[in-house]
Amino acid sequence: MSEKRGNATYVLENPPSIITSACVGGKTEQQGPMHDYFDKTFQDDYCGMETYEQAESYMQKIAIEMALDKLRLKSEDIDFMFGGDLLNQCTGTTFGVRDLNIPFFGIYGACSTMAEGLQLSSLMADNNVGSKILAVTSSHFCTAERQYRFPLDYGGQRTPTSQWTATASGALVVSPVGNGPYVRAVTIGRIVDMGVSDANNMGAAMAPAAAETISDFFKDTSLSPDSFDYVVTGDLGLVGSRIVCDLLCREGIDIRENHKDCGMMIYDLEEQDVHAGGSGCGCAASMLCGYFVPKLRASQIKNILFVATGALMSPTVNQQGESIPSIAHAVWISSEKETKI
Amino acid sequence: MSEKRGNATYVLENPPSIITSACVGGKTEQQGPMHDYFDKTFQDDYCGMETYEQAESYMQKIAIEMALDKLRLKSEDIDFMFGGDLLNQCTGTTFGVRDLNIPFFGIYGACSTMAEGLQLSSLMADNNVGSKILAVTSSHFCTAERQYRFPLDYGGQRTPTSQWTATASGALVVSPVGNGPYVRAVTIGRIVDMGVSDANNMGAAMAPAAAETISDFFKDTSLSPDSFDYVVTGDLGLVGSRIVCDLLCREGIDIRENHKDCGMMIYDLEEQDVHAGGSGCGCAASMLCGYFVPKLRASQIKNILFVATGALMSPTVNQQGESIPSIAHAVWISSEKETKI
Repeated sequence: MSEKRGNATYVLENPPSIITSACVGGKTEQQGPMHDYFDKTFQDDYCGMETYEQAESYMQKIAIEMALDKLRLKSEDIDFMFGGDLLNQCTGTTFGVRDLNIPFFGIYGACSTMAEGLQLSSLMADNNVGSKILAVTSSHFCTAERQYRFPLDYGGQRTPTSQWTATASGALVVSPVGNGPYVRAVTIGRIVDMGVSDANNMGAAMAPAAAETISDFFKDTSLSPDSFDYVVTGDLGLVGSRIVCDLLCREGIDIRENHKDCGMMIYDLEEQDVHAGGSGCGCAASMLCGYFVPKLRASQIKNILFVATGALMSPTVNQQGESIPSIAHAVWISSEKETKI
Repeated sequence: MSEKRGNATYVLENPPSIITSACVGGKTEQQGPMHDYFDKTFQDDYCGMETYEQAESYMQKIAIEMALDKLRLKSEDIDFMFGGDLLNQCTGTTFGVRDLNIPFFGIYGACSTMAEGLQLSSLMADNNVGSKILAVTSSHFCTAERQYRFPLDYGGQRTPTSQWTATASGALVVSPVGNGPYVRAVTIGRIVDMGVSDANNMGAAMAPAAAETISDFFKDTSLSPDSFDYVVTGDLGLVGSRIVCDLLCREGIDIRENHKDCGMMIYDLEEQDVHAGGSGCGCAASMLCGYFVPKLRASQIKNILFVATGALMSPTVNQQGESIPSIAHAVWISSEKETKI
């Protein structure tokens, strides 16, 4: 049984393991500083498919297959899965996993999707509902641009605060039995809306949600940021990262020394033309699955708080003048199962 | 702990209760045969708002508030919630629940959303993760038409196989403690795609998914349709209902005597101009929350298998020539907690 602390934190009594993970990326990701941490990268943003949407689905399929292959698992070994993405009706996922025949829960958390899937998988595994549960997500620069902003062919100018949707996918499998890294606690996010309505400044929209969830986690668990190697936000980018640190400092929570943002890790912000950094479900997912989980498994780092953030906006309601509600889900992942920190 | 049977069925050991539920509908729903079962109906499809999208969000808010009011619950009594809808990026839900401040998991299962939310809520409650968990969904004829097919102003002709997206919302709360009706078992659906690509014939696309999940449930539990008052499909409509009964008959499972389809219940197919029947997340959700749950609570009926079906299509990929993958999730709901059937 998972023990509730505070309003929205659950401490897992039988911390489940992330037994395998994999991630794939596109060309911009290959050219970035994290290229060695991808299991596979594609030179071509079509990934050999006919449309960008098909390419995104294909990336999910490859990420899942590579994660399963590492443990010689087959899709029938998976009890059920959680998956979603940024595309309308989450078709990146639907078409990516259609042939796998795995019992399927569709989720939507925008760029927080990997944290949401990992939370749900871990809560299920902590209670022995399922012995192997998969979580997957993806994003693709070209599918996201045409859906949320302008088709690439339009050649629109991007603003300095805009972020670059990562062409990437990450998949992982959670099990009640394993050698870690272990999911120790989760804090479920609430929808936060501070009135930001600029679809080209999502970092600013999401930062208050991240701050609220991070603050909830530390209050609910009585832990402090010092005990964590990294407090990892999903894709706040340059603008949102500054805001989240500022907001938390005002509450007496200082994460400036050990804060990392996947959106700032995945690209070289000086050399690559990505403006305020990376974004998209695939950004946090690939950094978690390709960088952090392997480092935790090898005990090169011991504890991270993974906080993926989602801007729950839609062009339809955005054009109606609505603001951008956001959400952030936090997951404490540790190389150790029981040690108190 | 929930006990796994077969590939995707979980029998709940401590069957949680649906402790409250409510549903709201629009004008066409008010004019239909089920008007008395709605807690509230709106004469105006704008529900007093400025846009149809705002109206859909408002319906979700009202459905949740009415469900909570019945037990004098407040939003802070809810541990967390599952919600989603048909709109791009699930904004019907996001904006509907934004002010409630409830820890939030976004889900996407198209018209299967209420069954997905009920399954996840019930699996959590069965394992005492959360003492009160809310599930909500909605759909709106006008938001769905303009997003999936044509804006209403276009005045397009509807085909005979097309269905009428219900303007409705349903909300319910699940708890480990209560007097029923009880969630006894769930069968998680898999994505099924038989190649149907006509967005005006979703019943035909979804029927094979419903047949597979219903067949899985009866095989996994060794129960038979005779033991159920009703096998309730979500929104297969006239076309899909015939197909699901035929497909199951071929497998030796005869549900013809006790099959009900929410899409055929919610409207008068002869008197109302709804072609093949109702559809949309709100269709199955309102019939579950307004009709079946109260009847189960009053022991007027004893057992139903609730099988909401979702067409996981998107105009973007549909226009690229893709078919319509579908999914169906099944939930056994009983007026009794333990009696074997």
